[in-house]
Amino acid sequence: RINGDRLWDSIMEMAKIGPGVAGGNNRQTLTDADAEGRALFQKWCEEAGMTMGVDTMGNMFATRDGTDPDALPVYIGSHLDTQPTGGKYDGVLGVLGGLEAIRSMNDLGIKTKHPIVVTNWTNEEGTRFAPAMLSSGVFAGIHEQDWAYEREDAEGKKFGDELKRIGWVGEETVGARKMHAMFELHIEQGPILEAEEKDIGVVTHGQGLSWTQVTVTGKESHTGSTPMPMRKNAGLGMARILDLVDEIAWSHKPDAVGAAGHIDIYPNSRNVIPGKAVFTVDFRSPNLEVIQDMEKRLAEGAKKICDEMGLDVELEKVGGFDPVEFDKDCVAAVRDAAERLGYSHMNIISGAGHDACWINQVAPTAMIMCPCVDGLSHNEAEEISKEWATAGADVLFHAALETAEI
Amino acid sequence: RINGDRLWDSIMEMAKIGPGVAGGNNRQTLTDADAEGRALFQKWCEEAGMTMGVDTMGNMFATRDGTDPDALPVYIGSHLDTQPTGGKYDGVLGVLGGLEAIRSMNDLGIKTKHPIVVTNWTNEEGTRFAPAMLSSGVFAGIHEQDWAYEREDAEGKKFGDELKRIGWVGEETVGARKMHAMFELHIEQGPILEAEEKDIGVVTHGQGLSWTQVTVTGKESHTGSTPMPMRKNAGLGMARILDLVDEIAWSHKPDAVGAAGHIDIYPNSRNVIPGKAVFTVDFRSPNLEVIQDMEKRLAEGAKKICDEMGLDVELEKVGGFDPVEFDKDCVAAVRDAAERLGYSHMNIISGAGHDACWINQVAPTAMIMCPCVDGLSHNEAEEISKEWATAGADVLFHAALETAEI
Ligand SMILES: NC(=O)NCCC(=O)O
Ligand SMILES: NC(=O)NCCC(=O)O
Repeated sequence: RINGDRLWDSIMEMAKIGPGVAGGNNRQTLTDADAEGRALFQKWCEEAGMTMGVDTMGNMFATRDGTDPDALPVYIGSHLDTQPTGGKYDGVLGVLGGLEAIRSMNDLGIKTKHPIVVTNWTNEEGTRFAPAMLSSGVFAGIHEQDWAYEREDAEGKKFGDELKRIGWVGEETVGARKMHAMFELHIEQGPILEAEEKDIGVVTHGQGLSWTQVTVTGKESHTGSTPMPMRKNAGLGMARILDLVDEIAWSHKPDAVGAAGHIDIYPNSRNVIPGKAVFTVDFRSPNLEVIQDMEKRLAEGAKKICDEMGLDVELEKVGGFDPVEFDKDCVAAVRDAAERLGYSHMNIISGAGHDACWINQVAPTAMIMCPCVDGLSHNEAEEISKEWATAGADVLFHAALETAEI
Repeated sequence: RINGDRLWDSIMEMAKIGPGVAGGNNRQTLTDADAEGRALFQKWCEEAGMTMGVDTMGNMFATRDGTDPDALPVYIGSHLDTQPTGGKYDGVLGVLGGLEAIRSMNDLGIKTKHPIVVTNWTNEEGTRFAPAMLSSGVFAGIHEQDWAYEREDAEGKKFGDELKRIGWVGEETVGARKMHAMFELHIEQGPILEAEEKDIGVVTHGQGLSWTQVTVTGKESHTGSTPMPMRKNAGLGMARILDLVDEIAWSHKPDAVGAAGHIDIYPNSRNVIPGKAVFTVDFRSPNLEVIQDMEKRLAEGAKKICDEMGLDVELEKVGGFDPVEFDKDCVAAVRDAAERLGYSHMNIISGAGHDACWINQVAPTAMIMCPCVDGLSHNEAEEISKEWATAGADVLFHAALETAEI
């Protein structure tokens, strides 16, 4: 068993870096706070006897050697970056749960045949630089590194420049590492495990995602002196598309979700009819055909709405991945571990995207989930209990040990 | 007649300060560019032999003495601040048209009984600090100066602090000046004069305005893992209210307009369901009852929409004024001047708010309008012809001369 108190203390220590405004965190990727969080993680890893490697995307890999020099490592980890108003556990539990597994192996004098590597993936959240899971995506060969470096935040700063600025461009070629397997522990971010009173979610699949950036163009003009029939109100066009997004998602109930979290209006002045609205539609489903149908209906519906209003509309896919089926053996290792440890468990589909979803394309991968209060995440009020965190890290520990072979 | 070329050259000179990105201007109130524009205006006024006075709201008053020391001055002017993506003429024409009238009086050696004061009112646009026409409003006793000083921009900077920062807090008590009359020349900002092929709009009335800031509160949560029935999407609530605003305005056709130009979403992250949406609804009508009806239906409708979606909604009136009827004698002076000069003219209702609307409450006031291309304003592409500008300034010149008595 891992040491739940020590894990919890480390989570609380990390949460002091990049504090939010309401008890959570704002430690967005490639900010100074992110750099500080990385340095603390590195210090802890070195104190636990591990050696840190960093690749050219800033992904961090802390290695505990195995007994067989030829055996490929087992990877365990997640991400330390947060949403602008994020929780203390999203991502962090998986990284520090991995660290705790190593600390427990040290305490118990356990040696494994395969090395074990605790990982922090850069820019999982995708909130500052779209898309999400950017660096595990480059690792898995989904995106080109050059393209990733060019991603811009809202202020026009580039990913590559910011990674350099905070001093975390590593030497390793991204994606060069080969993996025996990878396990990611994460909070559910949804309400199912809590409602079903299960300690552990054995993640068999992940929903697919589609991010479409929609740009509606109208004509800036005066809100007072422009007659109603002469208006080309890009904000109103956006409003109607947002309603359509909701309608499309509900039509596939309960197999789909849809919303827009990001909306920018130009010039955003009280007495100027919006000339431009830019927003990102987030559609998800465990079923690829459903995602494709939603994308198609969005494109057609947005065009129809805008045509009728004399507006222009452009759609650009800025992120996405297909639904994922995790590796059967790794999933079984998770289920066996939960069973062996006596934790209640159930199969679950991940509603969110995770680095594990990309890594699954290049290595046998699975995920472990623990409940979170009210299913709430991407909110500073995100909460889990120490018991849930402990159970999750215990299962991670055992699944990793079994796969890395004692 | 005034010198149209000189007027045009001054407008183009002023437009070099705070240039926009598409041929217009970004010289928002109390920015460094605003300070630069003020300094140029002051220099020009002094070169024309006038004396500058500045009040505690930063309103500028350049006086040309009259022959009767007891006669109250005739005021002519408008504003030099612009929208973030504004045109070169909105406001500027009225200020520099006033300056040109004085220059022409000097050229022609005309003396008037009443002094004439060319005015630049601070923060007419209201885009950086709501409400619009803030400083003429304080002058007219509509707002308290202390309250005005506390108005905040999007970055939380206060009006009073920014006025001080740019060095334009004057010595004069705001509103202490008494006026014989006031005339404001302004571009129409709407399509009517151009469509009717008239040189001059004799402004008899002004539409009333109501600005309601709406705050919709939901619950930030994950766009992927939050099931549809558990969502409290503040952005979607906003979308439905925006559609309602449009419906309400159309229902009073052709007597009303309505839109929202300003929209902010929190935390504005692609994979976070908006927890909060803040936006400002702009309703206008020449009919007070229509405005009141629109406000009432917005309040009721927004509540209904939000109740059904499990959202909270708060409405706060952040600006507004009742429909205005301008002073009959001043209006007649404008009409007579247009007639005498041989310009085609028609009566018109101002669609936009103007400083003249507030000053009308404390002094006999009227406005002169000239056409603008396609009725377009609050857009960098705002355009007028030199002939239109000349005609407007000519009428201003004559109306002022008649009222100030030669
Ligand atoms: N787990 C998580 O919140 N990942 C961010 C990518 C997503 O939006 O699903
Ligand atoms: N003229 C003008 O654009 N004034 C700003 C106030 C308003 O929105 O009407």
